[in-house]
Formats: sequence, structure tokens, C-alpha cells
Amino acid sequence: MTKSQVCAYRGRDTAMQTTKLLKVTIIAEAVLRERLIAEILSAGATGYTSAAAEGEGSRHLRSGDLPGDNVRIETIVDEQVADRLLTQLTDQYFPHFALIAYVTEVRVIRGEKYV
Amino acid sequence: MTKSQVCAYRGRDTAMQTTKLLKVTIIAEAVLRERLIAEILSAGATGYTSAAAEGEGSRHLRSGDLPGDNVRIETIVDEQVADRLLTQLTDQYFPHFALIAYVTEVRVIRGEKYV
Amino acid sequence: MTKSQVCAYRGRDTAMQTTKLLKVTIIAEAVLRERLIAEILSAGATGYTSAAAEGEGSRHLRSGDLPGDNVRIETIVDEQVADRLLTQLTDQYFPHFALIAYVTEVRVIRGEKYV
Repeated sequence: MTKSQVCAYRGRDTAMQTTKLLKVTIIAEAVLRERLIAEILSAGATGYTSAAAEGEGSRHLRSGDLPGDNVRIETIVDEQVADRLLTQLTDQYFPHFALIAYVTEVRVIRGEKYV
Repeated sequence: MTKSQVCAYRGRDTAMQTTKLLKVTIIAEAVLRERLIAEILSAGATGYTSAAAEGEGSRHLRSGDLPGDNVRIETIVDEQVADRLLTQLTDQYFPHFALIAYVTEVRVIRGEKYV
Repeated sequence: MTKSQVCAYRGRDTAMQTTKLLKVTIIAEAVLRERLIAEILSAGATGYTSAAAEGEGSRHLRSGDLPGDNVRIETIVDEQVADRLLTQLTDQYFPHFALIAYVTEVRVIRGEKYV
């Protein structure tokens, strides 16, 4: 947990320990699922969560015309891993695929398991 | 991209460019899906993502008694569009429907595609 | 709404009122769904949203070996309720189950319904 920051979650009598980490969310065509999961793990993430998301052609994702379903994949990582993953997506995926990727700050219980 | 703010995502050697935008999440009865999507696009959003969410009657959404399934719709927009959308929801939907709507700050790759 | 903070969402001509609250997300084995929902309501939440998430064995959640599907449950609450819920998860669930729990700051329309 070199880069992440442990912060005491402000509680009343307990001092809930949470860790500030980044959640990277990727929304893409379902056919990219396995490749994207491989990228996530390759960037250093320890896990991921995925769920189906409905596709709506070109209105669903911002570019391209997407037949069929989409997938939403999330992973909780530290800044280093997020940076590696986003760089890889930017270089290798955005030029070729309709893809949404964004980062949200989250505070995680047992954050040491993610870094 | 008049209102949104481009910020350098702190990387080690790369300077990952992300854009601070707002993710608006709406959770509602599935029957409202098409109407809500029309509102989202009408407010100026360039796209959206939707997925099914399980309904649990009045415990699922905070008011009303909701039989059947729910839908969760998300859109990434700038502040102007978020404000238009939330205003429309507040004026036209909240008085009549059980609806959850909230805003999360996100940092998006290729943010210029969303504004 | 003792602890939450009402803030004016920066709009142009309207002053969209949103309330800063916390979204607690829990990802777990689907078999825990009912127990976790009971914990959420017991902690003081007024509702929740759940959706299926795909499981991928030990790679999906960070510990344990999870056959079958997962569930993702979200609830929007104030800090007091979040603290109670996270404390309960930390004490009663994390020692025994593979579980992900994290907190995100959100700004909610009609926030008074959640506290």
C-alpha cells in the first residue's frame, strides 16, 4: 500500500478505517470482455467485477455502431495501476474501439487487499 | 468543453489526460426507461448506459409501491447538461414517480466526446 | 438530515438543491443477498438497489473461491448509517466472507428522503 492513503472514516465512536483508492469503470462491447479483463489484471489489479449493460447502437456508446450487448467492468486499484490501465486503454483501445473509461474516487474497507 | 475542467491525471512518467465530468445516475421503474432516455438526450447528453436493477417494492425505491423491475440509467455529462437534466427530473418526474437521481464526480478518458 | 450537508448544485439560473450523501456499494456472493439487505435496513438505510454481477471465482472477489453468481447492492445513506453499516460488515462479514465494500460521495436530488 505504498501509494494509497489510509484515512480514518469519520465515525462517532468507532474509527472506521478505509483506504482511498480509485475505481476504474470500463464500458465496452461484450465481445471485448475477456481482452479487457486481461488488461486489467495485467496492469496489476487484483480483481474485477463485471455486469451486463444494455447496448443501444451508436447512442449507447459515443462512437461506432454497436450491435448486441455491452459489458461494464469495474476494478478497484491504486493510482499506479489505474495509470497503467488507462494508458493502455488510451493507446491500444480508444483508437480502435468504442469504449468508455472513467475513474471515481472511492473509500474501501480492507483496502490493503487491492494493492 | 466550455465548463468542464481538464486535469492531468497524476501518473509517474505519463501525464494521463482526463476530464472532470459528472455522472448522473437515475434509478426508476423500467417502464420509464424510454422517457428518461429521451430526457437525457434532450438535455444535451451524447449517450447513456442502462442496465436492469432488481425491484423490491417500496423498499427498493424510496416512495411508492413498485411492482416489476427497475432500470438504472447513467450518463456522463458536463455541469450544464447535468443541471438541465436534474431540473427537468425535479420538475416533471419527482412529483409523480418514485425516482432516485444522484451525481458523482468522475474523471473521464477522452472527455471531449461527452461535451 | 443532521449530518448531511445541503449544497447548492452550481447551475446557471436555477439553484439545483442536492444533498451530499454517501453511496455504500457491497459486492458479494448472491447467497448473501437477503442477509446483507437486512443489515442495510437494520443500519438505518431507507432503501437499496441490487443487481446481478458476474462471478469469476477467486479472481472476481479478492478472497475465497466463489462459485456461482454475485450480487451488487447499493444504498444511499448519511455518514452515521454508513458508519454503522461498515462497522457491522467489518466485524461480522469480512472475517468470514469474500466481500467488497466501498463508499462514494454522491449528490442526491431530494436527499431528505434518504436520512
